[in-house]
Amino acid sequence: MSDASNSQLHNKTSGWSALFSEPMSELVKRYTASVNFDKRLALFDIEGSLAHASMLAQQGIIGAQDLADIQRGMAQIKSEVDAGEFDWQLDLEDVHLNIEARLTALVGAAGKRLHTGRSRNDQVATDIRLWLRAQIDDICAALRGLQNGLLTVAEREADTILPGFTHLQVAQPITFGHHLLAYVNMFARDFERMSDCRRRVNRLPLGAAALAGTTYPIDREFVAAQLGFEGVCENSLDAVSDRDFAIEFCAAASLVMMHVSRFSEELVNWMSPRVGFIDLADRFCTGSSIMPQKKNPDVPELARGKTGRVYGDLMSLLTLMKGQPLAYNKDNQEDKEPLFDAADTVLETLIIFTEMVQGIIVKPENMRAAALQGFSTATDLADYLVKKGLPFRDAHEAVAHAVKICTQKKCDLADLNLEELRAATDLTTEQQALIGADVGHCLTLEGSVAARDHIGGTAPNQVRAAIARLRNNG
Amino acid sequence: MSDASNSQLHNKTSGWSALFSEPMSELVKRYTASVNFDKRLALFDIEGSLAHASMLAQQGIIGAQDLADIQRGMAQIKSEVDAGEFDWQLDLEDVHLNIEARLTALVGAAGKRLHTGRSRNDQVATDIRLWLRAQIDDICAALRGLQNGLLTVAEREADTILPGFTHLQVAQPITFGHHLLAYVNMFARDFERMSDCRRRVNRLPLGAAALAGTTYPIDREFVAAQLGFEGVCENSLDAVSDRDFAIEFCAAASLVMMHVSRFSEELVNWMSPRVGFIDLADRFCTGSSIMPQKKNPDVPELARGKTGRVYGDLMSLLTLMKGQPLAYNKDNQEDKEPLFDAADTVLETLIIFTEMVQGIIVKPENMRAAALQGFSTATDLADYLVKKGLPFRDAHEAVAHAVKICTQKKCDLADLNLEELRAATDLTTEQQALIGADVGHCLTLEGSVAARDHIGGTAPNQVRAAIARLRNNG
Amino acid sequence: MSDASNSQLHNKTSGWSALFSEPMSELVKRYTASVNFDKRLALFDIEGSLAHASMLAQQGIIGAQDLADIQRGMAQIKSEVDAGEFDWQLDLEDVHLNIEARLTALVGAAGKRLHTGRSRNDQVATDIRLWLRAQIDDICAALRGLQNGLLTVAEREADTILPGFTHLQVAQPITFGHHLLAYVNMFARDFERMSDCRRRVNRLPLGAAALAGTTYPIDREFVAAQLGFEGVCENSLDAVSDRDFAIEFCAAASLVMMHVSRFSEELVNWMSPRVGFIDLADRFCTGSSIMPQKKNPDVPELARGKTGRVYGDLMSLLTLMKGQPLAYNKDNQEDKEPLFDAADTVLETLIIFTEMVQGIIVKPENMRAAALQGFSTATDLADYLVKKGLPFRDAHEAVAHAVKICTQKKCDLADLNLEELRAATDLTTEQQALIGADVGHCLTLEGSVAARDHIGGTAPNQVRAAIARLRNNG
Amino acid sequence: MSDASNSQLHNKTSGWSALFSEPMSELVKRYTASVNFDKRLALFDIEGSLAHASMLAQQGIIGAQDLADIQRGMAQIKSEVDAGEFDWQLDLEDVHLNIEARLTALVGAAGKRLHTGRSRNDQVATDIRLWLRAQIDDICAALRGLQNGLLTVAEREADTILPGFTHLQVAQPITFGHHLLAYVNMFARDFERMSDCRRRVNRLPLGAAALAGTTYPIDREFVAAQLGFEGVCENSLDAVSDRDFAIEFCAAASLVMMHVSRFSEELVNWMSPRVGFIDLADRFCTGSSIMPQKKNPDVPELARGKTGRVYGDLMSLLTLMKGQPLAYNKDNQEDKEPLFDAADTVLETLIIFTEMVQGIIVKPENMRAAALQGFSTATDLADYLVKKGLPFRDAHEAVAHAVKICTQKKCDLADLNLEELRAATDLTTEQQALIGADVGHCLTLEGSVAARDHIGGTAPNQVRAAIARLRNNG
Repeated sequence: MSDASNSQLHNKTSGWSALFSEPMSELVKRYTASVNFDKRLALFDIEGSLAHASMLAQQGIIGAQDLADIQRGMAQIKSEVDAGEFDWQLDLEDVHLNIEARLTALVGAAGKRLHTGRSRNDQVATDIRLWLRAQIDDICAALRGLQNGLLTVAEREADTILPGFTHLQVAQPITFGHHLLAYVNMFARDFERMSDCRRRVNRLPLGAAALAGTTYPIDREFVAAQLGFEGVCENSLDAVSDRDFAIEFCAAASLVMMHVSRFSEELVNWMSPRVGFIDLADRFCTGSSIMPQKKNPDVPELARGKTGRVYGDLMSLLTLMKGQPLAYNKDNQEDKEPLFDAADTVLETLIIFTEMVQGIIVKPENMRAAALQGFSTATDLADYLVKKGLPFRDAHEAVAHAVKICTQKKCDLADLNLEELRAATDLTTEQQALIGADVGHCLTLEGSVAARDHIGGTAPNQVRAAIARLRNNG
Repeated sequence: MSDASNSQLHNKTSGWSALFSEPMSELVKRYTASVNFDKRLALFDIEGSLAHASMLAQQGIIGAQDLADIQRGMAQIKSEVDAGEFDWQLDLEDVHLNIEARLTALVGAAGKRLHTGRSRNDQVATDIRLWLRAQIDDICAALRGLQNGLLTVAEREADTILPGFTHLQVAQPITFGHHLLAYVNMFARDFERMSDCRRRVNRLPLGAAALAGTTYPIDREFVAAQLGFEGVCENSLDAVSDRDFAIEFCAAASLVMMHVSRFSEELVNWMSPRVGFIDLADRFCTGSSIMPQKKNPDVPELARGKTGRVYGDLMSLLTLMKGQPLAYNKDNQEDKEPLFDAADTVLETLIIFTEMVQGIIVKPENMRAAALQGFSTATDLADYLVKKGLPFRDAHEAVAHAVKICTQKKCDLADLNLEELRAATDLTTEQQALIGADVGHCLTLEGSVAARDHIGGTAPNQVRAAIARLRNNG
Repeated sequence: MSDASNSQLHNKTSGWSALFSEPMSELVKRYTASVNFDKRLALFDIEGSLAHASMLAQQGIIGAQDLADIQRGMAQIKSEVDAGEFDWQLDLEDVHLNIEARLTALVGAAGKRLHTGRSRNDQVATDIRLWLRAQIDDICAALRGLQNGLLTVAEREADTILPGFTHLQVAQPITFGHHLLAYVNMFARDFERMSDCRRRVNRLPLGAAALAGTTYPIDREFVAAQLGFEGVCENSLDAVSDRDFAIEFCAAASLVMMHVSRFSEELVNWMSPRVGFIDLADRFCTGSSIMPQKKNPDVPELARGKTGRVYGDLMSLLTLMKGQPLAYNKDNQEDKEPLFDAADTVLETLIIFTEMVQGIIVKPENMRAAALQGFSTATDLADYLVKKGLPFRDAHEAVAHAVKICTQKKCDLADLNLEELRAATDLTTEQQALIGADVGHCLTLEGSVAARDHIGGTAPNQVRAAIARLRNNG
Repeated sequence: MSDASNSQLHNKTSGWSALFSEPMSELVKRYTASVNFDKRLALFDIEGSLAHASMLAQQGIIGAQDLADIQRGMAQIKSEVDAGEFDWQLDLEDVHLNIEARLTALVGAAGKRLHTGRSRNDQVATDIRLWLRAQIDDICAALRGLQNGLLTVAEREADTILPGFTHLQVAQPITFGHHLLAYVNMFARDFERMSDCRRRVNRLPLGAAALAGTTYPIDREFVAAQLGFEGVCENSLDAVSDRDFAIEFCAAASLVMMHVSRFSEELVNWMSPRVGFIDLADRFCTGSSIMPQKKNPDVPELARGKTGRVYGDLMSLLTLMKGQPLAYNKDNQEDKEPLFDAADTVLETLIIFTEMVQGIIVKPENMRAAALQGFSTATDLADYLVKKGLPFRDAHEAVAHAVKICTQKKCDLADLNLEELRAATDLTTEQQALIGADVGHCLTLEGSVAARDHIGGTAPNQVRAAIARLRNNG
């Protein structure tokens, strides 16, 4: 009996419906089947079906007994899926038909009533949204975790001075804590974007049916409320064909990975022996198959490489949707693998980075040596001159002269005594007199860092204040 | 005097600063100069500089006379730029140095004080954000304009029936008004995304200086308030190197263009003579250089092609930022052209589409003929059977039989009389009896459309209700 | 004994080498392991190792017994892999270490000598090239297969007339055979590009070792000859870090898929009921879960969607390599999955299309009706006038007038009698006299098609000649 | 007279042809016009037209006087274009109509005969191919130029030792000449790819007319020969719609830029003060607006950034062509700007890099210090042990022990005396005895480098041999 009742779902092997005169080619069956990858939507498919069935019963479209049968059958299927014992069949094409066929096998006619008032088009759109919503929540939690990991290290290193670089040239001294906060800020924007995206994911397409809505007296708001959606995707054609949310997610994911790639680039640079700013704990590194002395920062390198993967996922989905006529086309089956891949990559990467930042071993002496290497306090000297009355552009030029002298003498600005410094500026004698003994402090690394004392500046007290604010916002 | 005072800005021709022993190569000057494209930021650069100068004066960093001089000079420069009379010089590299040099030429020492407490790194980031904020506002207005144009046509065609397609096969009858609302919904999401992006654009980087903040007692919130920013980009390293907002904008712009490409695809299809659903007013079409009979839908085709352009801009910026170490690198100069191009393309396309949708001439008789062509009410028959008690999957199979019979007879379901219809279903005699004379209504196009009467369904009254809601939300 | 001899490969669990003080984190092990996807390189890894071992023995670097042991062990491993019985271990990270560890377990010290004079860096580059070369050969064969399938249908339909479209507007009549040849030409270029790419794939990196070459007296040309490579990748740093060939392949694969997407777009359009030019055999179509009348062209739609996938793979690899310093970085492990995916997608798609084109059912009456719908012979009339002496631009304008008259009369040019036609041109009486009774033939579809009788033209005899040439070149 | 004769080309302002009832909208005219960017094709358009006219005359389709008139008119137009005095008109839409209208104004009826037997569709395809062929030739010359520049430096630095890095960790000593040759090899592959692409660019589409060929007795091979094309694009539908060559070019250009990005990344790293391997001549660097001490490697950074631009161009074109039905659609007008941009970017970048590599100032002492920093000869010690009879994997483990000891002692392997070295290996006493006094040489940088003496190895004599081979192949 249950076999017979499933015949319509199984008849792809003999012809899709009475309308078809030959069975689907085996090659086509494999090419078009999605069950190999969409079975990970199974629990969300069940969740969506249960909400749909509850609504059907509430609206009197199916009976109370049908609902009870469906609930019983779905409970059984859920336990089979959880246990890894569900028998996925390629012949049944996708996760939806597999579950519906199993349901009908388990509970008979009630199973054949489940699909009333819906279509696979709105069903699959609902499942993906439920799945993605859960992924976004996990990713947001992972972003917070990584931010917290960074804040811990930033707090510990709020006074540790290293050179700030522009163009990989020494620019001005900063603190390592301040540097790490730049990444905390990036991940904060990622959190915002993921949250904005979540609002657009969290809308219910179910009720759009194939493309035009349905003739049954359905209650879309009821289903939305059951499933925790914030609203419904109104227009039925749009509801079944909209994949904006997947693209928007991949764009947000691409930005996360872009930030990860920048951080990775820095970690790899910092760990390079010539730079030597940090070491990474051994458990995050690998050795070489032929160079016994190697310790390689594999994790940040691999993460940097995975950036391309997520960019590619984004480009796949943008290409997929370009020029598609309404409403649903089979092209859209290709939405899932890039989306799955992007979400998995981002989540795994954030989790491993959270663990890895704990394993950053700072080498403050190398950082300090580097900060002393490139006239990093030259701007401070220029600012000193401005405060004494020189126009900014003239002060800038005077300091460039002094730097040139030091380059020739192979010394730092701080190594000149007051008279040497005055002479090196190439200013008029009158202007030189503006430089007093107090100039010394502003040429030290600590003096320079401490002087940048405003919101967002690198002064240690500002770094600590920023950490406190970020902890409160998290 | 003013010539001399500008020497520091001009000395790229002789060597960047006292530190350099040879002038910049002419080739390099051309390769690295950005003034050819970044001069469009001029008015925003002036706006930002005026806010910065006001803050400097308020904080006592420059004098009141300096501020007055700067304001006077900038007013002069603004009028020169507005009049197209500003003398842009490649030697001065970019918009910022051109304006600063002109200011110093006009007002002397005050001009040389303007750059106190800032750097080109935070200055350029501020300018781009001001520019992009204005662009987003224009784009949001254009999105509203296009939505309103679509709503006007949708209301006019709320009862016009055409086939809804899935897989470009006739699926179910819908109304043309309903179809157009799908696009109104897409552009509504675009509006949301642009607005979300605007919040992240609308933060002030100024005060970050080169990368570490500044030693002057600046007031970043004051500048933010002056410029209408909602907050400051806190961490100084992040502030100068963040280009997330440009990427996020290009991602949102890519989605706008993707929607445009889908609409364009449909317009081109609909205007193809075999389909013949619409015509486009002649003013939006072109002829052929050799085929005198041609009238081509150039605008939607070109718009569809421009989708690639904006996708490319997005990919450019994602690639640009991948793996960049902190803080600022010259790579970032490449942020502007893709961003300009994406914003221009989206804005121009939306404006021309707003005009074009007014020129859509509907051919309802062709639409109706098409809707009668592909058994578009077959689902309605299945739903009818379900309502009479058949499980959904059995009803679906019965209708497939009837469709097969009609295909053989080369007629529509509605062309069968009651007995023929019953027989065609291949149901048991008992089940056939469920089909009554009332089945006729559900097989008509009007009956089918009217029956999809829930939020988001294609029933004309639902379409009108949706239009009313969308007008109120706009 | 063999356990002990493998300790160095297994010690990631206890610390990568004596140099490491803690084992690799479990999370890191999973994140960085590639064995789950690179095990498909197994047979190529064995092939490469055997050639390397032969060379080592020939050069006296290992003994004859070592070589024999390695060959014996590898034969055993190959049979285990072929039988699906090889025990892949995540702890051993990748396919290379898994095989080497198994070899050492099987044959002892000889296994530990295999890696002499090479590194994983050149080993993995060799394996991928061997794998990709085989894929390209399969893809080239599949391209030929699809071309042959198309040629068969083109020959059958060399006289079947349908409208040629530009801008999806009827332009001029063409034959369906001619239309299909456009795709045969596209796939011919794909074949050329794949062949060009193969030359660059087919070079040997082995011998580059980690990055600098090796101190052993190796013979790279010997290994290249053994493996059928056409040359060696000379510079050792380049040899280990070059992934150009993977990117070039993905670019060529993207073009294949772009062509497939165009063909798919046309198949879907042609099968849409309003167009009705073709039908696809049922075995390539699917039905609907709720619309019993649907027959959907799933295969071309899905193929069109998969275009995005391969574009994304290309973008992944381009991003991956952007800005990577020499020589090898772990980023490169991310080269494999996009490459595998692109090759699999292209190959499967070509194979299914080859089968599908046999299932194209042409509906010549619909094609003919469409060709008569849009003044498709208007150009022929213009050409007629030019041949009678009118300048091209004047003739073009005269025909436009005639078309306008016909549009008003709702008839075709061929429906006008000679006098009506003359009048409709709006030419001077003298000019009108140029139009003779012989104009009739050039206004027929057959006359129009036959007149385009030069290389590449749509005349049936030209189509047949082109088919003959293409068959000979294949 | 000539005004009147041009009326058909100008009538877009009044209606495209007699068929149109209203003029093109001004907005549409601006949106669809291409003359602003396609006017750079002018000389190629003239070249193509002259070849076409010669063929028309040879075939008797136009008269000898017509040809002479056209040649005279085109000579005049060419001189106007060369002098920058041609009056480009937006109303005439594109470069082709502008030139044709001007020709007709200059020479009357002959001008109106020029377009006989062709269409803008095949005309524009011909122009782009002629233009791109010239660009490819320039790019190939620029690639050779850059290779030669690199070879000069490589030869000078064939003995200069620096560390070879993998994972930015010190791996093995190499020579700077060897390192530069890696890039010479990359650019050699780029040259190959450009040459392969050129073959596919260098085919003639003219004769395809709008899409189906033409009714005139044209001679396509004659035109191809005139224009230096190697063959004709056979199938007429394919000929007008094929943009593979533009995509293939952008893919090849993307690989060039990817190589440039890798080289740039290294130049920037090498110039960073902590690394200090090179300096760049001042003329390729810029200073800072606020940091007087800065000297920034702007050129490589900007080039690295421009990589994204070319990747974006590629993505634009791939998206453009996705899913386009045959034959020509207006979408294709969007092919030019990305193509122009990619070609310009690559060419300018190669030229500036050729100049820049001459300005690389090597700091050998820093390179040497770095090579001594990371146990770069550890592999040599392992190889030494293998040559004395230890299996490779055991030797590798022994050296790892020795490195660990040295790390603890903060010394290099070469700093241990023989007994210390033996003990540090943790080998059995018997095995330790394998280490003789001759081990010393292999632990020196020079010994290590010289030992990699096979094709592609880093030994200075191999580097010199490779340079000689590369010079001969260029």
